[in-house]
Amino acid sequence: MDIFLQQAINEAKKGQEEGGIPIGSVIVYDGNVLGTGHNKRVQKGSVVLHAEMDALENAGRQPAFVYKNCILYTTLSPCPMCTGAILLYGIPKVVIGENKTYLGSEKLLVENGVDVIVVNDSECIQMMEDFIKNNSELWNEDIGV
Amino acid sequence: MDIFLQQAINEAKKGQEEGGIPIGSVIVYDGNVLGTGHNKRVQKGSVVLHAEMDALENAGRQPAFVYKNCILYTTLSPCPMCTGAILLYGIPKVVIGENKTYLGSEKLLVENGVDVIVVNDSECIQMMEDFIKNNSELWNEDIGV
Repeated sequence: MDIFLQQAINEAKKGQEEGGIPIGSVIVYDGNVLGTGHNKRVQKGSVVLHAEMDALENAGRQPAFVYKNCILYTTLSPCPMCTGAILLYGIPKVVIGENKTYLGSEKLLVENGVDVIVVNDSECIQMMEDFIKNNSELWNEDIGV
Repeated sequence: MDIFLQQAINEAKKGQEEGGIPIGSVIVYDGNVLGTGHNKRVQKGSVVLHAEMDALENAGRQPAFVYKNCILYTTLSPCPMCTGAILLYGIPKVVIGENKTYLGSEKLLVENGVDVIVVNDSECIQMMEDFIKNNSELWNEDIGV
């Protein structure tokens, strides 16, 4: 297991322990963690702090060349909003824990030249399957359906 | 002038008075303002709170049917991130103050069935022209270039 994906999973678990949606993300610059985050819909009443956005926010204001040398790890396939953030900042590579329980805008990422790696890690899948089964209303709110 | 676009311009001016980037946004549900916002990069050190995202955040957690009956007003053409947020939540109509100083992902909005209206209001254009001329580094940071 990639240590950064493992760290994203740990972020997801932290979110779950807080009563939130178990999705985590880590942004890595030049081999070092620049920011970590997890979904904050429940914890902060936030509609914009998906895990990837929270990791970006926690990474702070960065010049363009930093983003262009980053890898973003996320436990779940990025939704259209997070995809747009990846494209805005020109993050060239995204490692996705799983896309079995939710398929985001991976096609748009690939069309825009982003290197997309889907691991389909069993722990990531199990975590989201359990969450969605027990929290379908909250989950639907998070993905706008 | 549409009163809601005027309100978005007022938000942009509020941001400028705070020393921030002069872009404003208003979300309208069923004829009533649900949320207002302006770019918070400078004020909060935020890389995710573009004007549209700030308005969405200030509108709070909403069920899908609310977003699907909203109109989003923004003084500037929405970047890829804000475009993604509009698509995630299924906002069906976007009114854009101007797209002369920056052209965002309007094509992606249209391809996804969003009704996009570009006003190219002279006040919106002037505001961004002046800002970009005097703050090119900050502006480039905001759009990831």
